[in-house]
Amino acid sequence: MKLNETKLSGNTLFQNSFLTIDQDVIQLPNGNRHQRLVVRHPGAACVLAVTDKQQVVLVRQWRYAAGRALLEVPAGKLDKGEDPAQCALRELAEETPYTAASVEKIAAFYSAPGFCDEVLHLYRAHGIQADSALQPDQDEFVETVLLTQEEVRQAIANQEICDAKTLIALQFWLSESCTA
Amino acid sequence: MKLNETKLSGNTLFQNSFLTIDQDVIQLPNGNRHQRLVVRHPGAACVLAVTDKQQVVLVRQWRYAAGRALLEVPAGKLDKGEDPAQCALRELAEETPYTAASVEKIAAFYSAPGFCDEVLHLYRAHGIQADSALQPDQDEFVETVLLTQEEVRQAIANQEICDAKTLIALQFWLSESCTA
Repeated sequence: MKLNETKLSGNTLFQNSFLTIDQDVIQLPNGNRHQRLVVRHPGAACVLAVTDKQQVVLVRQWRYAAGRALLEVPAGKLDKGEDPAQCALRELAEETPYTAASVEKIAAFYSAPGFCDEVLHLYRAHGIQADSALQPDQDEFVETVLLTQEEVRQAIANQEICDAKTLIALQFWLSESCTA
Repeated sequence: MKLNETKLSGNTLFQNSFLTIDQDVIQLPNGNRHQRLVVRHPGAACVLAVTDKQQVVLVRQWRYAAGRALLEVPAGKLDKGEDPAQCALRELAEETPYTAASVEKIAAFYSAPGFCDEVLHLYRAHGIQADSALQPDQDEFVETVLLTQEEVRQAIANQEICDAKTLIALQFWLSESCTA
């Protein structure tokens, strides 16, 4: 089956420092025309960092869009031209008192491909070190939370983890010790 | 640590049939003010449906925002006032030649809480039946793809699954047979 949609024309409705909203007219495989709204995003990186005590490094922060604090893997938007691996290393160091020597790509995925082009690049961190010299930005309010695999299983079962990228990262971690 | 951000004022920048873009001025816990952009979305439901031959029912469809076809669990936006469980049943029947007798909640999660309030409600379907009477909408171009657990493991390893909700749903399925 032919699936491709082709852009016929486009119009930018809104733009700020990191999001652009485009409204495009597209052609379906059968020739019919539709409108598609697209939220364009620079992409982001997130990091699965596990300490030598086998605890995953998570952050609790207020998510204004959700109206609540969420427990998440460290993550952040890509700066212009930034390598996602560098972004993952940077966000871990900025948001937590830990640094990593290196990161390894686990996966890349769209957060909401029905209307948004954001790609999230997920990395596994290696060589985690506590770095007590961390000086967080005065306008950043982020708590570090360390959880064992058993605590992660409980938190998923209790629906305390309700952020998509974090569920994916933690499920990858749990699956490493799965013997099925 | 106090994490809450409080709305001081707000302004709607854009609105269409399903998305609203708000720009709010908020107060941080330290009293400083910032702007927050929020993409408001009605929420969506998605469904993990496994046939009696132990194959998961996926759909391949064009995602204009991504510029490519993606392999996903059946999913769709909530109609106004719609129960997410009903939406999950409806989307399975609309997008695939399968129906379910009932669905059971697995999880609910934010797709992109850094800028969007979309909640995805993930269900496990029970009582899957092939329904050859399905008549897809003439403007819907969706292929059904059936995969075994081994094929899913391969597809995740090969990064052929690159949609967040689908990775979460499939990882839940794989973890059911995990004996760790």
